[in-house]
Amino acid sequence: MPASPIRKLVPFAEEAIKKGRKVYHLNIGQPDIKTPEVALNAIRNISDKVIQYSHSAGNESYRRKLAQYYQNLDIDIDYNEILITTGGSEALLFAFQSTLDPGDEVLITEPFYANYNAFAIMAGVKLVPITSIIENGFAQPSLDKFEELITEKTKGIIVCNPNNPTGYLYSEQELRKLAELVKKHDLYLYSDEVYREFCYDGEKHFSAMYLTDILQNIILVDSVSKRYSSCGTRIGAMVSKNEEVISTALKFGQARLSPPGLGQIAGEASLDTPDSYFTEVYNEYIERRNFMVAALNKMEGVICPNPKGAFYTVVKLPVDSSEKFCEWILSEFEYENQTVMMAPASGFYSTPGKGHNEVRIAYVLKKAYLEKAMVVLEKALLAYPGRVLE
Amino acid sequence: MPASPIRKLVPFAEEAIKKGRKVYHLNIGQPDIKTPEVALNAIRNISDKVIQYSHSAGNESYRRKLAQYYQNLDIDIDYNEILITTGGSEALLFAFQSTLDPGDEVLITEPFYANYNAFAIMAGVKLVPITSIIENGFAQPSLDKFEELITEKTKGIIVCNPNNPTGYLYSEQELRKLAELVKKHDLYLYSDEVYREFCYDGEKHFSAMYLTDILQNIILVDSVSKRYSSCGTRIGAMVSKNEEVISTALKFGQARLSPPGLGQIAGEASLDTPDSYFTEVYNEYIERRNFMVAALNKMEGVICPNPKGAFYTVVKLPVDSSEKFCEWILSEFEYENQTVMMAPASGFYSTPGKGHNEVRIAYVLKKAYLEKAMVVLEKALLAYPGRVLE
Repeated sequence: MPASPIRKLVPFAEEAIKKGRKVYHLNIGQPDIKTPEVALNAIRNISDKVIQYSHSAGNESYRRKLAQYYQNLDIDIDYNEILITTGGSEALLFAFQSTLDPGDEVLITEPFYANYNAFAIMAGVKLVPITSIIENGFAQPSLDKFEELITEKTKGIIVCNPNNPTGYLYSEQELRKLAELVKKHDLYLYSDEVYREFCYDGEKHFSAMYLTDILQNIILVDSVSKRYSSCGTRIGAMVSKNEEVISTALKFGQARLSPPGLGQIAGEASLDTPDSYFTEVYNEYIERRNFMVAALNKMEGVICPNPKGAFYTVVKLPVDSSEKFCEWILSEFEYENQTVMMAPASGFYSTPGKGHNEVRIAYVLKKAYLEKAMVVLEKALLAYPGRVLE
Repeated sequence: MPASPIRKLVPFAEEAIKKGRKVYHLNIGQPDIKTPEVALNAIRNISDKVIQYSHSAGNESYRRKLAQYYQNLDIDIDYNEILITTGGSEALLFAFQSTLDPGDEVLITEPFYANYNAFAIMAGVKLVPITSIIENGFAQPSLDKFEELITEKTKGIIVCNPNNPTGYLYSEQELRKLAELVKKHDLYLYSDEVYREFCYDGEKHFSAMYLTDILQNIILVDSVSKRYSSCGTRIGAMVSKNEEVISTALKFGQARLSPPGLGQIAGEASLDTPDSYFTEVYNEYIERRNFMVAALNKMEGVICPNPKGAFYTVVKLPVDSSEKFCEWILSEFEYENQTVMMAPASGFYSTPGKGHNEVRIAYVLKKAYLEKAMVVLEKALLAYPGRVLE
């Protein structure tokens, strides 16, 4: 597996920190938001004498409560249609392994979450990209573009909604179009909805699970990581109304015995998180996004769409190469002893050359830090030797 | 992936429990031993406000402390030669994925831990069995048997020491012989040592890491599950002096982001478990083993070797089929409203037909329960319609 462009930057960031520089980490989706107290308290109050294996599909009490969470979203899910997994990562891997054979192809709009590549490699399947473009905010390309790429090896489509890395929120209409394609070619629809709660400007999330006439084809990938700022618990879920898919995935689940036990305690307790928590988080992210999108678009030669979901945005910079720029800003640049770490967008494209002047920025720091980071970025763009204004 | 013979029994066990029967679970390696207080207290006292991703290789503090644990065993390991994994399961999967290509072959003595099959399927590799036999206590077969099976596709050997399912403890001499083979054919040696601390009768564990002239070929698989009766934390480790192997495995680790965070806290704290804990556990298991092996060998037609390690034993029963017998004892039999769940040994062999009249018994219950379970088993063997005395 090739190392991603983000990981190549790690030594440069470490070097900058060693030099005593403040590095603003806008490169990774690790929010600074507090994990809900109900989750932490559940951990602090564990009464178990033995930390035992759980059911391979996860604790039944957790699955039942999680089913209720989906019911509250008008998603008709029973607890035995849920597998608790080791993060959303394992959910996607199980989904691939349970439905695809080596050599199969899966369509996906690029830019896309880079780790999908790794899971595809592990399952021996090929991701076939359809490029979405910054000029229209990374909206879903036309169905024709998908149709063109469908071969007899095509077995599925991945949609990440809201999207990582673009922050794009797919509309009901876009998903209904995808559903037509899924139905016509009898494909699986892998729907990664881990950012479900992060939708802005009054927009509503439309879950793939609302596409009731293709329910047998849908596999939902979910996670507590972002929803409850609980990335380290490594708890996710694979959800499907397709009994055979769940039953096959359970065999993979049995091979690794059980999902993390302590994480499940935190995950189950998190379902009691009060609404006020989400309101606070929502307000926090909206403020950050509004500030950051405005600050970026004010910089000469920078284009930043206004993302309607998640906490990422893909931004076009006036640079020759975002990989070079991201390395340069960490290793050669500083402004008042500060610098910024961003993710070169090339790592999110599989078509060579695409995204060469784009970066992904995660707005996971508080506004006071974002303000400083944006000043540093603006100064850096002006000082960068490879500056290119189109 | 085929369902294992153990899993097929689960509905029968559930049915027996529904009927109000006491089922003694001797089928799974879930010890009843308490998790060390130091581990539980570390969890109860977490001060984190955000449960964050850890380093993909695991927290550095944990890796450094774990390296010290190995140093104390005279195993020369540095913290950067360790990857913390999601259980020993992930360690073995990463080991396969980092060193083998689809189609490669790995030698292993059977009976072997059934889930190795699943990891082999996931990595696309083939496990080639060499049968060990109950008559000599499942000792390592002669090297000729291994040599016969080596082809150009053979890339490694797995050894599980002490062994699950047989409880066999490999001697220094046996391991040195394996090392010759490893050297001669430049193979990898995957050494699963998760039961390292469970060695009886004054026998000492000989780690593969003591084979200093093949260190570049060795990958150690480890876990906190059994050592600290902490199966549910899902924390293991992959250890190797081979820098390239660790670096490749880390890429798989990065794809799944990080090992469980709460489990790592428990795992790190477990390293402070006092010696008195292990003495108690040792005494407990010795007492159980001695009782159980004697009780089994007293039954007519039953053969049970005296296992020197782990907490399993593979036992020959006077039955036509242990799969049928294990199903029958759960569904048709009861003695004083009690019954016993065991694992048919066929699931631990990959040669068809092998182990058809053997079961794996895990002595993970306290002696008072084992006594009752052995009475039930003896009565059942006498009542079973498929009883076969050779």
